[in-house]
Amino acid sequence: MDGIEAVAFDLYGTLLEVASVGRAAAEVTGEPAALVDLWRQKQLEYTWLRSLMGRYQDFWATTGDALDYALDRLSVVVDEATRARLLGAWLDVRPYPEVPDALDALALGGRRLAVLSNGTPDMLEAGLAAAGLRDRFEHVLSVDDLGVFKPHPSVYELALKAFNLPAERILFVSSNAWDAFGARAFGLPVAWVNRSGAPLERLGAPPTVVVPDLAALAEAVG
Amino acid sequence: MDGIEAVAFDLYGTLLEVASVGRAAAEVTGEPAALVDLWRQKQLEYTWLRSLMGRYQDFWATTGDALDYALDRLSVVVDEATRARLLGAWLDVRPYPEVPDALDALALGGRRLAVLSNGTPDMLEAGLAAAGLRDRFEHVLSVDDLGVFKPHPSVYELALKAFNLPAERILFVSSNAWDAFGARAFGLPVAWVNRSGAPLERLGAPPTVVVPDLAALAEAVG
Repeated sequence: MDGIEAVAFDLYGTLLEVASVGRAAAEVTGEPAALVDLWRQKQLEYTWLRSLMGRYQDFWATTGDALDYALDRLSVVVDEATRARLLGAWLDVRPYPEVPDALDALALGGRRLAVLSNGTPDMLEAGLAAAGLRDRFEHVLSVDDLGVFKPHPSVYELALKAFNLPAERILFVSSNAWDAFGARAFGLPVAWVNRSGAPLERLGAPPTVVVPDLAALAEAVG
Repeated sequence: MDGIEAVAFDLYGTLLEVASVGRAAAEVTGEPAALVDLWRQKQLEYTWLRSLMGRYQDFWATTGDALDYALDRLSVVVDEATRARLLGAWLDVRPYPEVPDALDALALGGRRLAVLSNGTPDMLEAGLAAAGLRDRFEHVLSVDDLGVFKPHPSVYELALKAFNLPAERILFVSSNAWDAFGARAFGLPVAWVNRSGAPLERLGAPPTVVVPDLAALAEAVG
């Protein structure tokens, strides 16, 4: 991990625990885990499929579409107000417990920090403000101007442009394994935060380092 | 469905029932459905992700990678011979029962027929031969020369080039909802074969027609 001058973080699932989505889901169904899992799976699938189809639609609208599909599939009927509350849970988020200290440690080490996410600029600003983390980041980078989602290489290139640094000086950090492999294929050093002890994906070059949480990452980067 | 002169079919899940994969999985685990579901999900994810990453790898290798991940995740250990037998199940396939008669009806109506699949040319030839269907098709089209998987628009364009017909004369048929939406976004008329009664995806313009099986499709096309 020598020579790392900046760190770019994925947001949802990496810095922010989207537990409020589960709480909101529990208000509308007796099986909130099934709804949240299917919603999240469809949200990701739709970002990949729309990117490949050349039919980008922003992450907020895509998240809403994924919710509508998941509700339909599980035969859960909700009114507009409830749908808005479910979707709004993506804005009402908190950081994983170790995140503030880990960010402090990295910043004390002199590293410049950024967020690099599929979310719209509005979602990112709202989420970081709710989590009390907005002032930790020099850059908050959204795919929205590009019109394509992760893991398209142009997304990871945003970090190089924002920091004005070569790839080997920027560590990319994600809990989403496919995102970690995407950044690695682009050429960034990558830390995969494997919170659930999942096996490695088979998607080419593996992450540079695998850590169980962000406290371990801060130690590894030093 | 007026003016349709040719029909291009997706293969796996649309014409061919990959039931032999389930039988092979039952030999190595007490929960074959879990293995087959995760294997298929990862197989598709890897095609989408590799296409977006610009890291194409053919469908046979990708199917093997997805199998290795699924086995790992479910803590199932197999030897090389068993792995080869699991993978080989993709070549040992049979058509859904209504398929031969439906293809006959479409051909009697004067339509030209093709297969358009993510599979490698070798997989497609082997699968169609095993199913006794090879001679039904004027063209067997693989994504492999393109180096990108469905639903990239260039894949659906293969059908226009092979038939030398404009999009509105070619009906694309798939049981895979995301594939149906991909072809529709490209501009083909599309029949989604909704064998499981799933809800519509939220991915833009819906399929032109939805049918429960290929017998119903043959009737709808007339």
